[in-house]
Amino acid sequence: MTFEETTGSVLTPEAQVALDRATGSAHRHHDLLSSRAFHIKQSAVRDVFDISIQPGLVSLAGGSPYLQELPLDELADATASIIRNQGLAALQYGPGQGLAELRELACDVMAAEGILDADPADIVITTGSQSGQDVAAKVFCNPGDVVLCEDPTYVGALNTFESYEVDIQPVSMDSEGLIPEALRERISALRAAGKTIKMLYTIPSFNNPSGITLSSARRDEIVQICRENNILILEDNPYGLLRFDGEPLAPLRASHPEDVLYLGSFSKIFAPGMRLGWALVPRHLFRRFYLACEAVVLCPSPLTQMITAAYLRDFDWMSRIRDSRRLYAGRCAAMLAALQDEMPDGVSWTVPDGGFFVWVTLPEGIDTYPLLAEAIEAGTVFIPGTAFTPGDEPSSRLRLAFSAVSEEDIAEGVRRLAPVIRRALAAAGAS
Amino acid sequence: MTFEETTGSVLTPEAQVALDRATGSAHRHHDLLSSRAFHIKQSAVRDVFDISIQPGLVSLAGGSPYLQELPLDELADATASIIRNQGLAALQYGPGQGLAELRELACDVMAAEGILDADPADIVITTGSQSGQDVAAKVFCNPGDVVLCEDPTYVGALNTFESYEVDIQPVSMDSEGLIPEALRERISALRAAGKTIKMLYTIPSFNNPSGITLSSARRDEIVQICRENNILILEDNPYGLLRFDGEPLAPLRASHPEDVLYLGSFSKIFAPGMRLGWALVPRHLFRRFYLACEAVVLCPSPLTQMITAAYLRDFDWMSRIRDSRRLYAGRCAAMLAALQDEMPDGVSWTVPDGGFFVWVTLPEGIDTYPLLAEAIEAGTVFIPGTAFTPGDEPSSRLRLAFSAVSEEDIAEGVRRLAPVIRRALAAAGAS
Repeated sequence: MTFEETTGSVLTPEAQVALDRATGSAHRHHDLLSSRAFHIKQSAVRDVFDISIQPGLVSLAGGSPYLQELPLDELADATASIIRNQGLAALQYGPGQGLAELRELACDVMAAEGILDADPADIVITTGSQSGQDVAAKVFCNPGDVVLCEDPTYVGALNTFESYEVDIQPVSMDSEGLIPEALRERISALRAAGKTIKMLYTIPSFNNPSGITLSSARRDEIVQICRENNILILEDNPYGLLRFDGEPLAPLRASHPEDVLYLGSFSKIFAPGMRLGWALVPRHLFRRFYLACEAVVLCPSPLTQMITAAYLRDFDWMSRIRDSRRLYAGRCAAMLAALQDEMPDGVSWTVPDGGFFVWVTLPEGIDTYPLLAEAIEAGTVFIPGTAFTPGDEPSSRLRLAFSAVSEEDIAEGVRRLAPVIRRALAAAGAS
Repeated sequence: MTFEETTGSVLTPEAQVALDRATGSAHRHHDLLSSRAFHIKQSAVRDVFDISIQPGLVSLAGGSPYLQELPLDELADATASIIRNQGLAALQYGPGQGLAELRELACDVMAAEGILDADPADIVITTGSQSGQDVAAKVFCNPGDVVLCEDPTYVGALNTFESYEVDIQPVSMDSEGLIPEALRERISALRAAGKTIKMLYTIPSFNNPSGITLSSARRDEIVQICRENNILILEDNPYGLLRFDGEPLAPLRASHPEDVLYLGSFSKIFAPGMRLGWALVPRHLFRRFYLACEAVVLCPSPLTQMITAAYLRDFDWMSRIRDSRRLYAGRCAAMLAALQDEMPDGVSWTVPDGGFFVWVTLPEGIDTYPLLAEAIEAGTVFIPGTAFTPGDEPSSRLRLAFSAVSEEDIAEGVRRLAPVIRRALAAAGAS
């Protein structure tokens, strides 16, 4: 798939239909498509995922975790032993809720994050936290219902919500995360317009793509606002343990078990290839959520669940988390230093306390989307800001990921990106 | 979860809401649920899956494949070698479409089934064929749209379609499968009533639960009827290679690449624990389907894909299929013989040519659902017929699975079931 073929992501559904017709892809089954089918977009991240495989390219695009420190030989032995000794269970269908042992271990992970009262009975193991987002949208959202989210937010969640024809409404952040007053105002305005608001989707710690963390001081207030307005909070916390220094901030779920449907992921603390995450569901919503999970995949893979359980049970995973935090902190510092060295005046960026991403802001009026092709030409790649908000408005932002690239390559990638940005600023008369 | 707690499956959505309110499970988030959430039911098969774990019970309920003949030691070694040598790819995110090698191997599997022109570029690897059904419903069905299916059909597909508020319309079968005239009449009647018909969901070979196979003579005609009426065929073929004698019947997809979206599964030819299937998508529908798959799970597990690819590449999987066919044929014969020996007059059953299931019919007016509790009491378990049609009408049918139980246990299970059925017939004055 070439880059040009994947730029459907910036088309409106109507424009896509027009393009389909114009390019002859209007066909006799066209009328069979659901109206939601026209809202399902190519993920810009996935576009670039394909491109990034080009040799020689320094990819600052994909937010893949660094796996090189995984003890592969020991994992190979542990997995072989699972297949040898428990193969008939590992290779067969399993329970729809997920294995009890893994649900218990997920409680240990959450305890390390600050959630101390999680009960394995309230957990469903999901096929990655992406599947948790999909099921949440399915269970809660009718077409046209509002989901509030941070501006910017995770592109995969946007694509999932759009596939349910949700009206996604981004709420402003500052350097301390979601702005409570902005949330209140948005809710009032939407209510006044007769809208039904179902959820707030939030990544409070090390937001993807901005790297911004919701401050402790604001956490209770955000929950309070949602509770007063009967809005369920869908908290996505894949990076929670990856804070560079100090203890992780307690998730919103920690003190508010009935207000928050919490999504965890084994992708960043173990390995994305397992495709496993979990949902900790308020008890009064559990049965609905669980049945919908089952209708989507019957059950998660017992094999990858048993491997993940073995990793969390028999390996010193917390020590690897500590190593990862140091590694990611070093890479983040390398990226911030390179930006400082290379970027022209007029360009600014966030300074994250954890996670995988730095969010770069160019002067207003510069669209970063067309710069992507130039960056690839120059040997690096990023994700344009437009991917991280609903709709197709141009954005003067871009996301840089530091998680999967060495400090040297980070510096080289930023060095290759800088002239592209300098030219854009010059063309815009901004420098 | 007790049996009583899971009988929500027979409630209408309205009755479920009433029950929620009466039992105090009406809560402040109740109004946040989507209308589709009320259509998501507990799978009767999964209910019984939990129950079947009781020691001493002979389960004729679950359609699990027989895995005892898998070469676990060799699979353990192959998997260890994947993690040792390709671990960084196996444990990382992968392409949303699935690995090229596994898509190529899926083409080999389809070639053995009679589909000779499949192109790996038209395949998406799915998280089990359940996920393929989910995505098909997402891409094609608006609430109220009709999906036609066999009467009876797979309970998991019914649950999935119901979660999209699809109007599921079962079409009669006889011993040769779907009746073309019945299909034509149903389409006319639905069209006359102003309904929009999107798909025919069909399991043409060894239908779950009936074991019935659509005859060769009818296959083209069914496709022709759908083509004339612009109805997409969703062909689900998990058991296609498991024909007891002779060559597999060519799937509908074989001669009709543009009419059929074909779902394959690695669960029955390898292992359900991988949670992998595939969709072979008509090219004009590919992009929509692929993007929707990505919105659901980002990507299938590279690890389980690599294990499955290794199994299909390096092991003599066709020879294991031949062994499985003999084994399942023997078990089916044992079940038919036991039914012949034990069942009273007035009870009849299908004689399948392959697959996992026999479908038993009691005299009209006897509801098999209440018999389930008695059967469990007697030490065996089946799936009541009502699970395999939309709605909650009582059914005088039941499904018996012979795939996962030894011939001796099959005989014992039927022997335990017989008095339950005899009592029901006596109570109904039918014998």
